[in-house]
Amino acid sequence: MSAERAFVDSLKALASDPAARGLVDDCAVLEIGGETLVLTHDMLVEGVHVPMGADPADVAWKLVACNLSDLAAKGARPLGVLVGHMLGGDDARFAEGLGEVLSRYGVPLLGGDTVSGQAPRSWGLTAVGRATYRPVPSRAGAQPGDAVWITGPVGAAMIGFEGLRDRTGGDSTAYRRPAPRLAEGEALAPLASAMMDVSDGLLLDASRMAEASGVTFAIDSAAVPIAAPEARRADALRWGDDYELLATLPAGVEPPFEAWRIGEVLPQGEAPLLLDGEPPEGSLGYEHG
Amino acid sequence: MSAERAFVDSLKALASDPAARGLVDDCAVLEIGGETLVLTHDMLVEGVHVPMGADPADVAWKLVACNLSDLAAKGARPLGVLVGHMLGGDDARFAEGLGEVLSRYGVPLLGGDTVSGQAPRSWGLTAVGRATYRPVPSRAGAQPGDAVWITGPVGAAMIGFEGLRDRTGGDSTAYRRPAPRLAEGEALAPLASAMMDVSDGLLLDASRMAEASGVTFAIDSAAVPIAAPEARRADALRWGDDYELLATLPAGVEPPFEAWRIGEVLPQGEAPLLLDGEPPEGSLGYEHG
Repeated sequence: MSAERAFVDSLKALASDPAARGLVDDCAVLEIGGETLVLTHDMLVEGVHVPMGADPADVAWKLVACNLSDLAAKGARPLGVLVGHMLGGDDARFAEGLGEVLSRYGVPLLGGDTVSGQAPRSWGLTAVGRATYRPVPSRAGAQPGDAVWITGPVGAAMIGFEGLRDRTGGDSTAYRRPAPRLAEGEALAPLASAMMDVSDGLLLDASRMAEASGVTFAIDSAAVPIAAPEARRADALRWGDDYELLATLPAGVEPPFEAWRIGEVLPQGEAPLLLDGEPPEGSLGYEHG
Repeated sequence: MSAERAFVDSLKALASDPAARGLVDDCAVLEIGGETLVLTHDMLVEGVHVPMGADPADVAWKLVACNLSDLAAKGARPLGVLVGHMLGGDDARFAEGLGEVLSRYGVPLLGGDTVSGQAPRSWGLTAVGRATYRPVPSRAGAQPGDAVWITGPVGAAMIGFEGLRDRTGGDSTAYRRPAPRLAEGEALAPLASAMMDVSDGLLLDASRMAEASGVTFAIDSAAVPIAAPEARRADALRWGDDYELLATLPAGVEPPFEAWRIGEVLPQGEAPLLLDGEPPEGSLGYEHG
């Protein structure tokens, strides 16, 4: 983490505000021709973000989905993607998965690059979207008095991952093929004071959003929907890869679809996050990475 | 090559025309808000595109420069870049080189991603530009009767690489820190019938442009400016990494800056490329990779 932090700090020093925003806030925002473009770039590395030996079709799916999820958190509609693919293994299977996820979300493949390499391999993807609402939601706008909402349960990816790891034969779809909440992001963008996707764990991402907004989030753990046994609730709140959207909405405003109110925004206190009234102990989630 | 070709063919099958263009033609073109965006994504891999142990500042420079060169070939003015950086080694030095090249070309860093990984490391970069002339030049527009032009000498990167490899202490700047021809690309875009950058070797790239255009290029080897000893002329015509622009212009049209007329466009013959009247023998350049 310290290497990454130092590097990102160096990058931030390079970038002028608000251009630096992409390095803090997952997406870059670019005004052009009266439109607002949202751009995001994520890399996946074998053995870090996807298991060694993962089905290349699942790698392609996750590569696209995690970037589309970043667009979803901005209320942006995807215009296309550019893929960086390291050849080797089963490239045809990678192309198959890429075709599936792009077709599922109606996103064109605009271009990209193929390179030779060797394990552990890596892939990169840039997704470009058009903002459907301006200003584009950031993670820095939460206000005291807002309510904290989540678009769906956490823990499904954890259960899927464990099923794969332990070869239980359980359904691992949620882990292998996450679903970006594009429609939900568009619907929330005009309503939310802050929004982000939950990729690194609910508590960690909530803590980051609270810090970025200069407030404290009070989360009610029992109110969080989980897709895991009750005994795993604490883990589910800390596991990533679910790609639900976390949003703060002014009091009295409700999402126009089923969503869960999991807490409220308080003025900035000593800790950015309270879980059932106390700062949570131990790891809050997945630190990149 | 066959793995890459098959994969790229799979990708092309996924992509609708003209979206597939980016996979053939290095850049994607996206119309939005009355503007035309040009996007390109290139990856670099240690041991493949940059030497193992290369100065990370040079890696950052080359990563940006090779993508800006793709924009230059479209007459596009850079709006910003997103960088995918694999942590490890000297990240501060990478950030330093990134700062140098972005500052040199006045390009903002919009965002990106950092990931952990291990050698051989890889990096990705997406450059976004705004077309200054429409239609955006492609490599497919060369017409019989056009003249073939190049914006500068080839061979400097080869000499620089060899100097580094053999530790001669010679100037390796051209290899380590190539200069994208952005101003030249903008100036040529309204004049050129076809344009591309020479990244994989003049003969190979000329051959590709001729094939894409459905014509034959007749190149006069003695007319090609080289930045290498005369004894290395044949090698200089086949070495890549120089990032000059190759353009075809209608007869009688001359570039508004110093450039070299190195051949002419003929109706399609048996070979896409003639060198001093004959199809060149052996390798034409650097096959990706």
